[in-house]
Amino acid sequence: MANVYDVAYDLEKALRNSDDFQALKKNYDEVNNSPETKVLFDKFRDIQVALQQKQMAGQEVTQEEVEEAQNLFAEVQQNETISKLMAAEQRMSMIINEINKIITKPLEELYGPMAEENEPQQ
Amino acid sequence: MANVYDVAYDLEKALRNSDDFQALKKNYDEVNNSPETKVLFDKFRDIQVALQQKQMAGQEVTQEEVEEAQNLFAEVQQNETISKLMAAEQRMSMIINEINKIITKPLEELYGPMAEENEPQQ
Ligand SMILES: [Ca+2]
Ligand SMILES: [Ca+2]
Repeated sequence: MANVYDVAYDLEKALRNSDDFQALKKNYDEVNNSPETKVLFDKFRDIQVALQQKQMAGQEVTQEEVEEAQNLFAEVQQNETISKLMAAEQRMSMIINEINKIITKPLEELYGPMAEENEPQQ
Repeated sequence: MANVYDVAYDLEKALRNSDDFQALKKNYDEVNNSPETKVLFDKFRDIQVALQQKQMAGQEVTQEEVEEAQNLFAEVQQNETISKLMAAEQRMSMIINEINKIITKPLEELYGPMAEENEPQQ
């Protein structure tokens, strides 16, 4: 029987060597090696995080904040280096989600039927 | 280069065949095959989920609800079948966390330094 952690390390290696991770790394370095681009990207990330935190805390997001985020998003979309990084990040996020779905399938199969079975009782 | 999804499926298989998952499955079946135990376990799970949802929604949890949860927890702890299942679930949850830490290490290495680097600016 293959050891779970051994296979997890194999997966880490496969992910690290994948074209998708290598592209992400390259795009990330490109953004970080261009000071102007990095400032714009950090600003966009910071406002994204700030708005998310406000929403999660149930605080009201002002019209001004929404507009600032929209303006930055428009600016960011016109920057090719950042656009490429964001596309690579989205792709990596999708891959990680797929991997998680695959490896938690045994648990889903175990717990899935119980949840359905219980539905009518509630 | 190993395909990421092929290795993810290998990991799923290793997890499914692991002693820890097989023990979880056995303990889970034992709880579900004993109607009295299942009722107690479901009741405990339901109150846990309800309290968690209340806390996440920022709603107040009453003293009565806390006591009900504590009483059920005491009852559940004295039930050997449930105790074994809960220990197996905790162990599986730890394994999944470890796996996630291992496979997201390349991303942590990529993004970790950026976060530190930015700290003094904020
Ligand atoms: Ca920042
Ligand atoms: Ca239930």
